Amino acid sequence: MEQESKSLPTKDNFSEWYNELLMMAQIMDVRYPIKGVYVWYPFGFQIRKKVYNMLRDLMDVDHQETYFPMLIPKPELLKESEHIKGFEDEVYWVTHGGLTELEIPLALRPTSETAIYPMFKLWIRSHADLPLKVYQIVNTFRYETKHTRPLIRLREITSFKEAHTAHTTWEDAEKQVFEAMGVYSEFFTKLAVPFIVNKRPEWDKFPGADYTMAFDTMMPDGKSLQIGTVHHLGTRFAKTYEITYEDASGEQKLINQTCYGISERCIAAVIGIHGDNKGLVLPPNTTPTQIVIIPIVFKKEEETVKEVCRKAGSLLNDSGIKTVIDDADERPGAKYYKWEMKGVPFRIEIGPRDIKNNSVMLVRRDGKKESISMDGLSETVRNKLMDYQSELLETARVSMLSRIKECATIDEAKEHVESGWVKLYWCGEESCGHALEDAINCKLLGTPHGMTGAGTCPVCGKPTDKIIIMARSY
Amino acid sequence: MEQESKSLPTKDNFSEWYNELLMMAQIMDVRYPIKGVYVWYPFGFQIRKKVYNMLRDLMDVDHQETYFPMLIPKPELLKESEHIKGFEDEVYWVTHGGLTELEIPLALRPTSETAIYPMFKLWIRSHADLPLKVYQIVNTFRYETKHTRPLIRLREITSFKEAHTAHTTWEDAEKQVFEAMGVYSEFFTKLAVPFIVNKRPEWDKFPGADYTMAFDTMMPDGKSLQIGTVHHLGTRFAKTYEITYEDASGEQKLINQTCYGISERCIAAVIGIHGDNKGLVLPPNTTPTQIVIIPIVFKKEEETVKEVCRKAGSLLNDSGIKTVIDDADERPGAKYYKWEMKGVPFRIEIGPRDIKNNSVMLVRRDGKKESISMDGLSETVRNKLMDYQSELLETARVSMLSRIKECATIDEAKEHVESGWVKLYWCGEESCGHALEDAINCKLLGTPHGMTGAGTCPVCGKPTDKIIIMARSY
Repeated sequence: MEQESKSLPTKDNFSEWYNELLMMAQIMDVRYPIKGVYVWYPFGFQIRKKVYNMLRDLMDVDHQETYFPMLIPKPELLKESEHIKGFEDEVYWVTHGGLTELEIPLALRPTSETAIYPMFKLWIRSHADLPLKVYQIVNTFRYETKHTRPLIRLREITSFKEAHTAHTTWEDAEKQVFEAMGVYSEFFTKLAVPFIVNKRPEWDKFPGADYTMAFDTMMPDGKSLQIGTVHHLGTRFAKTYEITYEDASGEQKLINQTCYGISERCIAAVIGIHGDNKGLVLPPNTTPTQIVIIPIVFKKEEETVKEVCRKAGSLLNDSGIKTVIDDADERPGAKYYKWEMKGVPFRIEIGPRDIKNNSVMLVRRDGKKESISMDGLSETVRNKLMDYQSELLETARVSMLSRIKECATIDEAKEHVESGWVKLYWCGEESCGHALEDAINCKLLGTPHGMTGAGTCPVCGKPTDKIIIMARSY
Repeated sequence: MEQESKSLPTKDNFSEWYNELLMMAQIMDVRYPIKGVYVWYPFGFQIRKKVYNMLRDLMDVDHQETYFPMLIPKPELLKESEHIKGFEDEVYWVTHGGLTELEIPLALRPTSETAIYPMFKLWIRSHADLPLKVYQIVNTFRYETKHTRPLIRLREITSFKEAHTAHTTWEDAEKQVFEAMGVYSEFFTKLAVPFIVNKRPEWDKFPGADYTMAFDTMMPDGKSLQIGTVHHLGTRFAKTYEITYEDASGEQKLINQTCYGISERCIAAVIGIHGDNKGLVLPPNTTPTQIVIIPIVFKKEEETVKEVCRKAGSLLNDSGIKTVIDDADERPGAKYYKWEMKGVPFRIEIGPRDIKNNSVMLVRRDGKKESISMDGLSETVRNKLMDYQSELLETARVSMLSRIKECATIDEAKEHVESGWVKLYWCGEESCGHALEDAINCKLLGTPHGMTGAGTCPVCGKPTDKIIIMARSY
């Protein structure tokens, strides 16, 4: 497959760097002839597979995977009035089958509440059927009119993992919200993506939800990227779709629901946060190749060196470390360039001198080099991979936290928000919230989960314990 | 989740049995409010996952998984005139995004040639890029006007595995056709689904292909079900989409292509062919649960029995045999009914007498019982599962072949085709082929791969070596 010969822009110019990297590292092909719709290259798809298999494993602990239809009849979609208000400008409509106009237009699912809940009505009869926890990984569609961007703002979201749960009480559903937050925290930790969980303000919650908890991460340009959301739906959809269960005393009651989702933005976060001027930097958990072995060959010892490389490769693969040997007839420098672009965590170089010393040269993606013994190679490499994974997360976490600044005044916030996030106090009044958004020219992400303090609202001056995070946002 | 309390119709009434079984065994929920569009129940989805993971493993040997967009701009879809003729009545069109009419209508992919090949044009530059072999597992859409049926005739095909390959020469592409046939043969063998590969007649090949090889299986009602197809596309699409490569001498040449696909019909075949009056009969390869252990308990020995059941369950699970212990507080009969409906291959009953004899009672889904020793339990069970898998395939194969009858006359064929397939000779003329289809009132499936004989065409009386299979068809 064709290789680009351009060079990668530097990461200071984040937007250009990001778009170019996706093409050069063969993650997404952006040349498909529809705006906001992209092609997964085979290499990008391998990353997607790794990442979504991790997510699936986490979900499968106590959710059942299912598949609900992509098409939703207009009357079903319109039933929940709060919900549809949030989506009506963004829904794609199928109006024709062949040359025939359809009697009932069909929506491409923007999200699947309205496809799933009519079935929940049929599936749920008694308290014994609860809790019910299902999920699916599907393509969803939004007619985005804003600037689109691969993996981030899409017209076809190819990889939407949406979970939907039903419970007897509001409190049980709330417990599920916290459980889901736990699962998502584990998932993003595995991706080495740091985050803050913010409770969205009323005007920015999921259409139809009682409240929304959102996972936000910081991209290198200081903007926030929403990478996951968990919604408490209360009984609103249950009322609309008439989903009831018979409780122990024989009474019919409305179910309480939650839903929560993650899209391929999780991969955009990995790429954006960790990548550098040489290309991708992939956490060991997310990459199809964890180690590349490169023989450093000189004519007369070529066969010996390649033999040792193969031996090391088998050792590592047998112990579950995904290893590739690159013994193509190319200069080592060209190989380094290629594998650095693909973000492979470690390169192992083996030459005649290493063999004499019974060692190999381990070069981390960040350039740190050390000679390690062939004895216990797999164990050493596995430990170093784990260290590397932790370091990636820790570095990103420290960097993110260092760029969140508590600001006392609106002017200070306005200045800082150009490069990071601001922490402020807010009285909780919607009018003051909007005033802050207008004055600072960014988004009120919400109140960070579990965090309170003592300060005053910069708009009305009221004392308050409510901390908020504000940021420019994708 | 709610359980149906109806009883299953007998299998003689195949159509009713099939529809009812899908609901009762919780494979597909047919109550979604769009014709031809169904919901995968969690249990059905687990089977789908097993089956498609097998398919994925087979493909991954030398194909790369990718994902191309679901939406195709109208001008791209219309480019290949032969191809579009085959689909124009069946394509769903998106005409609106929100309240805005789209400038260019977008098709929901009926299949992905027209989404993928414009990208192949960009990806393929030289002979070094060939062969290129990619596949994806996606939802596709057809506006079916005929009678729809879950897993068989769908408006949303939820699980279309389509592979697309590019080669330097027509001969290399033909080699790929045979390789794909090999892979599909292995796949259907793993599913215990017997098949015949027929080369479709000219008028029934894939729109735009040079020729089409189709995998047909026989359903219990004697109709044929097409469960897989492999197409040699020659250079037709390469011409339309201008896909060329530079050969070793620097000349630009058209690529040669193949494509091949399998849908959830493969699961319809497993269910239809093997199921019986008690419910599903799943080949061990396709079921999430291979063994259910049922304690036969009497009050005073209850704990001992359950303890032995747990021990046996761990033994089996540890050796990779998917085993579940059903120790719910229910009559054994109710449990048998439930697990038979779900098609679990073997039930193991353990009671006080078995424990005394250091044995367990193994009951196959077909009712055959035997006592087997606890010593070497896993190995015995694994061997018996393999035998059972082979027997399922062999029984189905013998049954299918016994219902294919060589007929000398059209009258004989007309009679036999009501219950099975007919084998005839055909001169190869299209007019005689259509005359046969009209007279026998069924479909000419084509010439079975690798089979010739000597006979005469019943229409024109010409001698010929061309055997054909004809059948009523789904």
